[in-house]
Amino acid sequence: MAVTYQDIVAAQSRIAPIVWKTPCTRSETLSKRTGCNLYLKLENLQMTGSFKERGAYNCLSQLSEEEKNRGIIAASAGNHAQGVAFAAHRFHMDATIVMPETTPLVKVTQTRQYGSNVVLHGDSFAQAHAHALALQAQTGATLVHAFDDNAIIAGQGTIGLEIVDQVPDVDMVVVPVGGGGLIAGIAVAVHGARPQVQFFGVQSAAVPSMQAALDAGKPVAVPDARTMADGIAVRRVGEHTLPLVQQHVRQVVTVDEEELAEAVLVLLEVEKTVAEGAGAAALAAVLQGQVPVAGRNVVVVVSGGNIDVNLIARIISRGLIKSGRSMRVQVELTDVPGSLASLLAVVARCKANVLQVSHDRTAMTAGMLEAWVELTLETRGFSHGREVLRALAAAGFRTSSE
Amino acid sequence: MAVTYQDIVAAQSRIAPIVWKTPCTRSETLSKRTGCNLYLKLENLQMTGSFKERGAYNCLSQLSEEEKNRGIIAASAGNHAQGVAFAAHRFHMDATIVMPETTPLVKVTQTRQYGSNVVLHGDSFAQAHAHALALQAQTGATLVHAFDDNAIIAGQGTIGLEIVDQVPDVDMVVVPVGGGGLIAGIAVAVHGARPQVQFFGVQSAAVPSMQAALDAGKPVAVPDARTMADGIAVRRVGEHTLPLVQQHVRQVVTVDEEELAEAVLVLLEVEKTVAEGAGAAALAAVLQGQVPVAGRNVVVVVSGGNIDVNLIARIISRGLIKSGRSMRVQVELTDVPGSLASLLAVVARCKANVLQVSHDRTAMTAGMLEAWVELTLETRGFSHGREVLRALAAAGFRTSSE
Repeated sequence: MAVTYQDIVAAQSRIAPIVWKTPCTRSETLSKRTGCNLYLKLENLQMTGSFKERGAYNCLSQLSEEEKNRGIIAASAGNHAQGVAFAAHRFHMDATIVMPETTPLVKVTQTRQYGSNVVLHGDSFAQAHAHALALQAQTGATLVHAFDDNAIIAGQGTIGLEIVDQVPDVDMVVVPVGGGGLIAGIAVAVHGARPQVQFFGVQSAAVPSMQAALDAGKPVAVPDARTMADGIAVRRVGEHTLPLVQQHVRQVVTVDEEELAEAVLVLLEVEKTVAEGAGAAALAAVLQGQVPVAGRNVVVVVSGGNIDVNLIARIISRGLIKSGRSMRVQVELTDVPGSLASLLAVVARCKANVLQVSHDRTAMTAGMLEAWVELTLETRGFSHGREVLRALAAAGFRTSSE
Repeated sequence: MAVTYQDIVAAQSRIAPIVWKTPCTRSETLSKRTGCNLYLKLENLQMTGSFKERGAYNCLSQLSEEEKNRGIIAASAGNHAQGVAFAAHRFHMDATIVMPETTPLVKVTQTRQYGSNVVLHGDSFAQAHAHALALQAQTGATLVHAFDDNAIIAGQGTIGLEIVDQVPDVDMVVVPVGGGGLIAGIAVAVHGARPQVQFFGVQSAAVPSMQAALDAGKPVAVPDARTMADGIAVRRVGEHTLPLVQQHVRQVVTVDEEELAEAVLVLLEVEKTVAEGAGAAALAAVLQGQVPVAGRNVVVVVSGGNIDVNLIARIISRGLIKSGRSMRVQVELTDVPGSLASLLAVVARCKANVLQVSHDRTAMTAGMLEAWVELTLETRGFSHGREVLRALAAAGFRTSSE
């Protein structure tokens, strides 16, 4: 039996006391930039930083007393772990979460803070999942799947009821896709009220398992791959989710790592909000023109915000170079006193701010009497960067830049 | 005549069609951490990224037709520029904004995008302001002051009406203080409905002009100083704002740069929201225990989010070192083949992730046959960092770390 609109309405009344109704705000700047009315459904502001507690809470609330007493178990290195731990805490249930040993401490700590028993096992999600199944066989605990479960799908679908309430004239919804639970639930909910709404799913190009499943007509495993969008890096989609995607979703597109990084940066700078890679995937596809949004009322789901701050710092550095707001330039210097000072004087006259200087006398590309210095400069755009290069050339410096 | 509650109610009806009612959300994590019910009033989500358009729109909406035709002028390097430009755009008025020549291009662009005429003049706000006054004398345009104006104060006060509506049992409000317009307006509004609410103001320790004014009993100029909280770096508070602060605010406290940086990072990591230094000042004071919040319902105003992303990257890097999630360690290496490889093998066994390696054979502190290598490592907290240092010592490496 597939999930129905009524299942989702029932889920909404179950989760209402505990799960936050997130904002769905119109972005003036992104609307202009993309030529549509663009709304962001901010599930990154959910209690655990992602939508996962919706499904988890709906699932746990339907367990029998006996099942509740036997406790629950889940395997996850990410948002599902926190969602399940959060929901189990509210029901005062014993919860065991198996996480790979490589899970960042911050995620382990956040999951433990809800009172769950965290077991670290294996080097990958697959090993953690196998261990969870073994533990389940011993304890009889209920395994809570991350996406391929009707109660989970119905719980995530409550986002769709909120979207229809918050943007009654919605024409199109764009959703990140991993195992398919999120988009399936939202689509069933929205189509229950507005069947004409178009759905687009977005995957990481590194792990396009939903595209592969749609092509094959059944869930198939794609190779494992690294991606910034770890939250949607699911190698095989669900048996329950695929038919709903086939029925409700117009197209599934993919975005690459650069496009994900740009979308994370746009959300940070323009919308003042923190999204993880997976959370920014839907916006990335819209910004890249992969979804025909023109003139429509478009809701873009920002599914989560649990991103490592180190990654944010890297995304910022790269993004600034890409957009001309910083530049690296290598300059050949005659290795005599004062040459670095005269170089920096030229830079100062151009009003470019020096972020970093690295001076290498041993680089192979330099002659015996020359040294290379690499400058990282803060610039006011590409034209300012070109102006700096022209000024350096005019002053007689040999340069190469990226 | 001082601003009254009725002035603010009138301002609210004027700005309602155009200014966003921002969320005021309870933070579970920050409530636990600080022992109170902590709500964040998210003015960083306002259209221009700060509260400034409230006052600007209220001010411009009360100009006569003749004044509207003569246009307006303002001086600002920051949020006021964008707020005024935004409001002028809605009224189709000519607006001239004088900004210092050193203003980052991104802020100039954002101000121009609303159709304002941006004039770059001088190296400081004071020079830009003087030029604005000179232009005003020529054109007869109306000068829109950033804080010392009743219409501006009343506009900012609309935040207070929203707070009382969103958190009816509010006991305490903590607000960043620059010239005093924001806290004065909010306090008059909140006290009009709930006189028992306590107000605390927060300044940057670098520019404590409100503390100085309260001590002196009148606005006095404090020295100029650099601070991450440039949005509240006001050397002299207002003639209109000071009496309201004297009447309504219990205490004004200060926070230093480290405390501001920590608060920006907490908002980013825990709340998934981007605040500028000034915007995070009120939270910084609460996190430092400077405000007696225990057991109260506390609204912390996050006044703006217009922060340079380069600064975010720097705050992240420093914050990770401060909290033990990354470390720098200098290691002395015998300068023979394989020594770096054996060092990195020790680090790998400790499961610390190498972020950066810098190898210097010429450092003065090394002997002729030794080299120093500096590693930047991602660690799982201080105890993990100490574990790495012990493992290096046990393997015979001399180290020093920060």
